[in-house]
Amino acid sequence: MSSFRVDGALALDWIASYLERVGELPVLSQVEPGQVRAALPQSPPEESEPFEAVLRDLDDVLLPGLTHWQSPRFFAYFATTGSEPGVLAELLIAGLNQVGILWRTSPALQELEELTLDWLRQLLGLPEGFDGHIEDTASTGVLAALVVARSLQPDRRVVVCSEHAHSLADKAAKLLELELRKVSVDDAFRLRPELLELDDACAVVATIGTTGAGAVDPTPAIADACEAAGTWLHVDAAYAGSAAICPELRHHFAGWERADSIGVNPHKWLGVPMDCSALLTRRPHDFRRAFSLVPEFLQSPDDAVNLSELSIPLGRRFRALKLWAVLRCYGRVGLQERIREHIRLAALFEEWVRGEPGWEVVAPRNFSLVCFRKDGTDEENERLLERVNDSGEVFLSHARLGGRYSLRLAVGNFRTTEDDVGLAWDVLRREASG
Amino acid sequence: MSSFRVDGALALDWIASYLERVGELPVLSQVEPGQVRAALPQSPPEESEPFEAVLRDLDDVLLPGLTHWQSPRFFAYFATTGSEPGVLAELLIAGLNQVGILWRTSPALQELEELTLDWLRQLLGLPEGFDGHIEDTASTGVLAALVVARSLQPDRRVVVCSEHAHSLADKAAKLLELELRKVSVDDAFRLRPELLELDDACAVVATIGTTGAGAVDPTPAIADACEAAGTWLHVDAAYAGSAAICPELRHHFAGWERADSIGVNPHKWLGVPMDCSALLTRRPHDFRRAFSLVPEFLQSPDDAVNLSELSIPLGRRFRALKLWAVLRCYGRVGLQERIREHIRLAALFEEWVRGEPGWEVVAPRNFSLVCFRKDGTDEENERLLERVNDSGEVFLSHARLGGRYSLRLAVGNFRTTEDDVGLAWDVLRREASG
Repeated sequence: MSSFRVDGALALDWIASYLERVGELPVLSQVEPGQVRAALPQSPPEESEPFEAVLRDLDDVLLPGLTHWQSPRFFAYFATTGSEPGVLAELLIAGLNQVGILWRTSPALQELEELTLDWLRQLLGLPEGFDGHIEDTASTGVLAALVVARSLQPDRRVVVCSEHAHSLADKAAKLLELELRKVSVDDAFRLRPELLELDDACAVVATIGTTGAGAVDPTPAIADACEAAGTWLHVDAAYAGSAAICPELRHHFAGWERADSIGVNPHKWLGVPMDCSALLTRRPHDFRRAFSLVPEFLQSPDDAVNLSELSIPLGRRFRALKLWAVLRCYGRVGLQERIREHIRLAALFEEWVRGEPGWEVVAPRNFSLVCFRKDGTDEENERLLERVNDSGEVFLSHARLGGRYSLRLAVGNFRTTEDDVGLAWDVLRREASG
Repeated sequence: MSSFRVDGALALDWIASYLERVGELPVLSQVEPGQVRAALPQSPPEESEPFEAVLRDLDDVLLPGLTHWQSPRFFAYFATTGSEPGVLAELLIAGLNQVGILWRTSPALQELEELTLDWLRQLLGLPEGFDGHIEDTASTGVLAALVVARSLQPDRRVVVCSEHAHSLADKAAKLLELELRKVSVDDAFRLRPELLELDDACAVVATIGTTGAGAVDPTPAIADACEAAGTWLHVDAAYAGSAAICPELRHHFAGWERADSIGVNPHKWLGVPMDCSALLTRRPHDFRRAFSLVPEFLQSPDDAVNLSELSIPLGRRFRALKLWAVLRCYGRVGLQERIREHIRLAALFEEWVRGEPGWEVVAPRNFSLVCFRKDGTDEENERLLERVNDSGEVFLSHARLGGRYSLRLAVGNFRTTEDDVGLAWDVLRREASG
């Protein structure tokens, strides 16, 4: 075990140093396709190698092949943070190597998952009656929710979402042999509820904080329509859901307490390392009925429900430990501070864009995502983004909004400062004028 | 960042000490349902707490609620190991916090996953032409494989497996609205291939190393039937697949190279911490066609395929890093040694049972799993197992084989010694005679 302590100290030092210098590394990896694989042996070693050899190749071969999601200058997709307590909790999770299947295979795993999901429910301002469990990603969560919705109304083979819903809805519908019907959006990229036709729909996927524009679908009107048609409502708040921890942002979430199921990803905006996607539902027994292999006549609402009866995998990691560690080490106040700071930085960036001739904000900003473009063609904006990302100084991504190629700056890394956002704006203007 | 180094040293020391003393802890948790949850605050903290507080509660509250999968005296289900290099790799994975979506979001993640899965293919003696990727568990892997099988023959709504196949087949069939047809087994708990009727079957799930008895379905005959009927063959070798690293055990795997897809769990018997389930397939382009949302006319076999196009989640963790670390730090020889030692220990235990009047081995032993029972009723054997597990000294599980309640001793933890297996036998005999 002495080598574990020695190797562990090396690994810990490696990661601590990495986090200290990650801001100086090119954000988007600059390697060519195949370069990493070609630099490594094409066959496994016969004899054991020291752990130091792994760290050496991490430096020499893998590091250039990383796109640095931990960088304060990562503004693409939705920026994330593997926070320090979350990272250390993963060390504990792996060391304990719990496998949650039945309650008895790890009582602490099951009960901590139930407890921390209830903590999360309280933080987000959701009422009692929502139970939660952890899925790997929002894609798996929405698949699970649609399995349940379909099981309740097996003859309704349609799922409805807006044309701006995430591709997770497309994938889940495809896997479940359901038809996905996409509804148009208004000028703010919100689902138009007057267009909903739900007679043949088993489920609607509404989004609070769309991937493209950060738009907020009108949840109250959608919930009305779902109730009238007897249709399951899933709210995808994978990115924005974490913002409900701030009371002044709760208005965006009006009506989500009427959803049958909700997805929120603490691995997106709450400092938890990949993977930790929360699935909250008012209908836990419908989940159990859809997933459990325990015959229904043997199930009772009073039973202890094993978490494996609520989702696809049989065994689960002790992911609750990292969510718990992060919620404790930041506290409600600490998480609110970070989300408010990200929103302040996004508002500042938005102001800079609005104040600069030749630039345009192309979607209302609800959270920490700013969508914008430079005057000119789609191709010019696309090339601009390529130049910005090739610089390695910052990393942004794009979306097609209202048919136009648009740039996206998403603030979401706990290490991001005003200087980092300022740098992004400098690089954008420099590359636009160059 | 200094607190990360300080907290990290505490976390590392906690886990190192845990691994040093895990053999002395009661293997099966002795808490009552609800005890862990009740001992923790029912609401999240307002202000931040130090990471030390997390470690303190880990000691005081969570530790008694753990069932110690890392214990050398864990013989239940299939015993696993979170090996030291695997645990430290999880620290690196969380610290890097890579999110694999497209190649560019982490070239190193995608290319290392492709490379290490090819290393695994070579270690297992599978021919070139099998591509691999990592799923969280074998349940998700078989679900993915059946999605592909169904997509190829959407009118064939039947999946076939033996009555001893894992419940993962039941769950996947249920989620995909397929009928699961179970075929009887022979005296050695192997699927009887002469009973296969595949005209309406899109897939067969054959098992090498069943969960109940460690039985090996006759893969060559099943492959013949699948080829004749044009039916997808998935081989579930979640547990036993790792044993194919030893050439002298390869005879159990005859014919698996003819499967369309194979599941092997390095998190079961190869020292990788949860979760790491390998999905190997000769039909990667069928996977892509079934999962990708890129329209088929835009897909080409020559494209770089993003791993998110092959499975359910959109984003993936850098799990390849832990598989790579384990394969390097043990090497082929080191992993062979451990698997051979586990099989030696299981054979020894089997010999003890066979040599003791009043005890019986109830299934042929193919790998490191021994199925046995004491003369007497099912209830007596069930109570015997309860007493053994309540002692906390060892943890075994059970299976129903040939209609009889049977005990299972599975060797699979890298820390297990002959003394540990000897203790299990002592405790069993003591509790049987008490």
